[in-house]
Amino acid sequence: MPLSQSTRNKLKTVSTATICTALYKRGLRNQMIQDVRPLDPSKPTMVGAAFTLRYMPAREDLNPVTVFQDRLHPQRKAVEECPPGAVFVIDSRRDPRAASAGNILVTRLQVRGVAGIVTDGGFRDAAEIAKLDIPSFHNRPSAPTNLTRHQAIDINVPIGCGDAPVFPGDVIVGDADGCVVIPADLAEEIAAETVEMTAYEDFVTEKVFEGRSILGLYPATDEQSKIDFAAWRRAKGR
Amino acid sequence: MPLSQSTRNKLKTVSTATICTALYKRGLRNQMIQDVRPLDPSKPTMVGAAFTLRYMPAREDLNPVTVFQDRLHPQRKAVEECPPGAVFVIDSRRDPRAASAGNILVTRLQVRGVAGIVTDGGFRDAAEIAKLDIPSFHNRPSAPTNLTRHQAIDINVPIGCGDAPVFPGDVIVGDADGCVVIPADLAEEIAAETVEMTAYEDFVTEKVFEGRSILGLYPATDEQSKIDFAAWRRAKGR
Amino acid sequence: MPLSQSTRNKLKTVSTATICTALYKRGLRNQMIQDVRPLDPSKPTMVGAAFTLRYMPAREDLNPVTVFQDRLHPQRKAVEECPPGAVFVIDSRRDPRAASAGNILVTRLQVRGVAGIVTDGGFRDAAEIAKLDIPSFHNRPSAPTNLTRHQAIDINVPIGCGDAPVFPGDVIVGDADGCVVIPADLAEEIAAETVEMTAYEDFVTEKVFEGRSILGLYPATDEQSKIDFAAWRRAKGR
Amino acid sequence: MPLSQSTRNKLKTVSTATICTALYKRGLRNQMIQDVRPLDPSKPTMVGAAFTLRYMPAREDLNPVTVFQDRLHPQRKAVEECPPGAVFVIDSRRDPRAASAGNILVTRLQVRGVAGIVTDGGFRDAAEIAKLDIPSFHNRPSAPTNLTRHQAIDINVPIGCGDAPVFPGDVIVGDADGCVVIPADLAEEIAAETVEMTAYEDFVTEKVFEGRSILGLYPATDEQSKIDFAAWRRAKGR
Amino acid sequence: MPLSQSTRNKLKTVSTATICTALYKRGLRNQMIQDVRPLDPSKPTMVGAAFTLRYMPAREDLNPVTVFQDRLHPQRKAVEECPPGAVFVIDSRRDPRAASAGNILVTRLQVRGVAGIVTDGGFRDAAEIAKLDIPSFHNRPSAPTNLTRHQAIDINVPIGCGDAPVFPGDVIVGDADGCVVIPADLAEEIAAETVEMTAYEDFVTEKVFEGRSILGLYPATDEQSKIDFAAWRRAKGR
Amino acid sequence: MPLSQSTRNKLKTVSTATICTALYKRGLRNQMIQDVRPLDPSKPTMVGAAFTLRYMPAREDLNPVTVFQDRLHPQRKAVEECPPGAVFVIDSRRDPRAASAGNILVTRLQVRGVAGIVTDGGFRDAAEIAKLDIPSFHNRPSAPTNLTRHQAIDINVPIGCGDAPVFPGDVIVGDADGCVVIPADLAEEIAAETVEMTAYEDFVTEKVFEGRSILGLYPATDEQSKIDFAAWRRAKGR
Repeated sequence: MPLSQSTRNKLKTVSTATICTALYKRGLRNQMIQDVRPLDPSKPTMVGAAFTLRYMPAREDLNPVTVFQDRLHPQRKAVEECPPGAVFVIDSRRDPRAASAGNILVTRLQVRGVAGIVTDGGFRDAAEIAKLDIPSFHNRPSAPTNLTRHQAIDINVPIGCGDAPVFPGDVIVGDADGCVVIPADLAEEIAAETVEMTAYEDFVTEKVFEGRSILGLYPATDEQSKIDFAAWRRAKGR
Repeated sequence: MPLSQSTRNKLKTVSTATICTALYKRGLRNQMIQDVRPLDPSKPTMVGAAFTLRYMPAREDLNPVTVFQDRLHPQRKAVEECPPGAVFVIDSRRDPRAASAGNILVTRLQVRGVAGIVTDGGFRDAAEIAKLDIPSFHNRPSAPTNLTRHQAIDINVPIGCGDAPVFPGDVIVGDADGCVVIPADLAEEIAAETVEMTAYEDFVTEKVFEGRSILGLYPATDEQSKIDFAAWRRAKGR
Repeated sequence: MPLSQSTRNKLKTVSTATICTALYKRGLRNQMIQDVRPLDPSKPTMVGAAFTLRYMPAREDLNPVTVFQDRLHPQRKAVEECPPGAVFVIDSRRDPRAASAGNILVTRLQVRGVAGIVTDGGFRDAAEIAKLDIPSFHNRPSAPTNLTRHQAIDINVPIGCGDAPVFPGDVIVGDADGCVVIPADLAEEIAAETVEMTAYEDFVTEKVFEGRSILGLYPATDEQSKIDFAAWRRAKGR
Repeated sequence: MPLSQSTRNKLKTVSTATICTALYKRGLRNQMIQDVRPLDPSKPTMVGAAFTLRYMPAREDLNPVTVFQDRLHPQRKAVEECPPGAVFVIDSRRDPRAASAGNILVTRLQVRGVAGIVTDGGFRDAAEIAKLDIPSFHNRPSAPTNLTRHQAIDINVPIGCGDAPVFPGDVIVGDADGCVVIPADLAEEIAAETVEMTAYEDFVTEKVFEGRSILGLYPATDEQSKIDFAAWRRAKGR
Repeated sequence: MPLSQSTRNKLKTVSTATICTALYKRGLRNQMIQDVRPLDPSKPTMVGAAFTLRYMPAREDLNPVTVFQDRLHPQRKAVEECPPGAVFVIDSRRDPRAASAGNILVTRLQVRGVAGIVTDGGFRDAAEIAKLDIPSFHNRPSAPTNLTRHQAIDINVPIGCGDAPVFPGDVIVGDADGCVVIPADLAEEIAAETVEMTAYEDFVTEKVFEGRSILGLYPATDEQSKIDFAAWRRAKGR
Repeated sequence: MPLSQSTRNKLKTVSTATICTALYKRGLRNQMIQDVRPLDPSKPTMVGAAFTLRYMPAREDLNPVTVFQDRLHPQRKAVEECPPGAVFVIDSRRDPRAASAGNILVTRLQVRGVAGIVTDGGFRDAAEIAKLDIPSFHNRPSAPTNLTRHQAIDINVPIGCGDAPVFPGDVIVGDADGCVVIPADLAEEIAAETVEMTAYEDFVTEKVFEGRSILGLYPATDEQSKIDFAAWRRAKGR
């Protein structure tokens, strides 16, 4: 079930927080990629289907600098194969002591039209990556070459990232709060539902700024809240 | 012993670092809320008496999304009851894997005149909260709804926050270094003492920028340092 | 083997990531000071020979506030003795629960011409330190006075900092990714090699922005990549 | 809903692992008290209703050794009030750096007929406590007096222990794997169900020792497994 | 390169510590499976070729208890397919909050002739597993069913276990210190070398008990040490 | 102030828990070596003056296996120089990922009459070390040679061990709860005081086993408790 343009567009307008609540209603509690943050929190929301790369711990004799001379090295191969519009998600086993990737690879992903990149480890050249247009998320900057601790071993298999399960094709959404994983077959309905939820949250925020109490308003247990919201939607055209 | 306006005003002009030193002189070593940071480090210093909320781990069957339809739910009740001028302090058991609160509740606290909010967990909608006028402090952004891991259970009881003891009414001061807890009955004398200490530190900083050695100056073991400081105070009117 | 001006100048133009790769080629995998970040990531690259200070855990009876009245207290003595151009490196045993130093000491280091300061603990007055010209690196802000947990015990001995070995005289380089430790006797050759590597990386980045694949280019396994790079160097005068 | 003798007796014959599976079927995933172990793993299974004690971080001025001269000190009061047959559960905020209790208090609990004690911190005099008849569970031994880090603040309120929610009256079961929390109103049905599950597990274990594959047997997807189990029950009188 | 009986027999007589030193001489520093311990430290040394199972984080909707009714479920399939003489190694992402396996599966492995089992998570029914003949290693006991946090996803692929790289066929050796991973193609030479090293270590231990200094003896920098060792070997027939 | 035989004998009869309380009364809260345990908890209490060894992180090029051929290597030198009756304390920076020492060195310490050994890292050959007569304490077993992560750099300097300050000559006491550090100049008075405290604790334990409440007894706020204790002492001859 590929990610439709319509679903992508909707998800770009909602927050990871709202998505988490929608997933929670369905019994999904561990879809947030834990302890990962945007290199540039001011970027627009990232949306795309997951294309994954799995790292295992590096063994010294298998990881001289020369391994990258092999065009089939999984890290380099994955960077060239990740589809435009996808989000490149790396399972670094929550280990940021060596880099998951650096500026050149992330730039290549941007040029190839990839929608974003996430690792539960860290990026090197973090300041340069932050300035790129492509949204990027990691745990913390990490200068050592990835060979120091990581060996790329599998492309596009199910992985863990920040303690969350990620299956290829799951939809990744990232904003200033971090990244959430929407199971592929739920993406469309979550997108629709969260657009609606967001309208109500925006209405509530406006009313709260105007001085209204959250009781009866958030959630809308007072009948008046529902009436006011309906009026607000008409007025706002949402 | 309520926090007087005079004490509040004094504390707004001093740093958490200076307060920690004053507390240290009295044998209080664990008053810093550990590993908590401002969402917007450029905000003015936060000062207020602690109003507390205690979370326990959430049990799935007790925490459907519908619990918030109860107007007496402790989280929502606490937000409506926290006194203007107070600091809302949440014991999230140092667990940022789910949100302690989000943008709407924090906005409501701001509108109600609350002086600030602190959790040793994390906030969702962190970018929006950072833009509010109310100062806010947490460990890291966290999008999952608080029901995922937290159940609000007690209002305004003694709690731990970031390994520091917090009693209702203790005075919380927060700046770019984080938040410190001043026992209520010490607030006035700490305020007075730290204003004095700050004057000396400002004098020292100025002299150090002018090239003077810290030896004999910081602390003032040279008689000349005391003489110069007296002159500086007169000149500055402090 | 003192750090020459020429080596210092070269190192100011390269990244910690590139240096890590050069060290990795020589079998040195643990030279990155782990989990340390710049207080102001926009500062120029820090370069200098390490001058070290070792902290041990503080014992309450030995660390009243009055210890700083002793002009020979190792922390204060070290600040006055650190040579201009050096980097002041503190072994805080990766414990940021109390400050490694504050604004006044760091200002004094700046005035004395010190090139930078690094701790694997935290600084107090972090916002002020960030505004100084001197580059500074720590784990996170920490307001409690260093006496709360740290006792300065040794000046300019070999230490650990962020799990990396640091010998006095080793060359410390710091940028937005953090700080790396170059063994003193390797500094000159690493500087020369990384300047060359940086030229190639800049060339690659430019080509990748232009749309070229990384395969055959990074590393330069295609003959054409080498030819193009030679032309690029001539054109750029590098 | 008090714990009946019949339910208690049943729970004494089943394992925490089996109970966890029964809770999991009901959507309860966080009922295991994490990272807690028996001081003597060879003791019989502990069963009892939770009587709780909540610790907050200790403040130095409030916790001189003399506080225990107060007969109303919550720690001492709780030890004298915990009902016979109950399990004494302490919320130590997962901090074993100071003791949750020591040999004398645990001995008193034993003499008073208490069924067991659990903390997510540590006990002092651990070797002596291990030799008592009363089952005890902690994270690791910890000699410092509890005043060093803990202040008893609340008796028999809902708490967290090892990241699990514990409400007074919940049924705690402990064996070599650790401790699990059964919500009070589920205890009877969980006891009944796990006795049944245990019978099947014992049958399976016997068959596996005899050489049978787990496929079709565990779980019983082969019809023959059900037939054999029925025969086994008749033969064993279970 | 399958593990020969001769190599297996040699490795059963040496320690993981000696093997680590032999690997260290070859530049392999990360072959110890970190933070894993035997359930019964008194068992003989475990030796076997790695057969691996990879877990990813569990997603709630994909992991009802009924998944085990599928005979092709990778966890159950792996248990039936692991070759006799092999060591079953599970990548649990260092997460012991739910079980990696329990008594029935481990018993089945024993009956099938498997040489041992290792996880960097935890086992449930730990006391029963400890009593089996098959050696077992984990981080700590963990009662919750593995579905709570783990989903078996891949059989016999390269994995990480306790931060060490494990390729299928690598030779796993386990004793009271834990488990070490010998790359398959080094097993024979490491076995031969460590048998020799062990002879010398046994000789040294005997001499040290007799009162000899370690200087010149360990390592054998004194000529006399070598002469004495040669005599000792002749006397002992080693 | 050397440790007298009389003080040593007294300390052998008291527990680390009682010593911690006596230190706490003097304002010393951080003297417990955190997260360290005996390899054999059934050994008699260890007592001796601290002789220290400091490790820094290992740098690969400085730590080939051949470094031990140098008779002046600090680790080997320290083992030969540690005085009989002393406790050998190693600062391993709380890193047990490589061994602090192994069986041969610990055996040599035993033969030389050393009173015990403590590291905040781990020992290799842990099962053999546990069987020696010399008491030993560590975090967990660790097979990799110490060169993998540690370089011995300083002998008998002030160190941190398990977050506690250790000065050469401080008195280390170790039992099943772990190890505590008594400042050298307090050892005699702490020994005297804790012998007295232990008498009272033994009396209390006996009374509690007989059924007496802890209120009024522990601490002795009831006059009767003091009278009974006096009688008990006379009867027991203590």
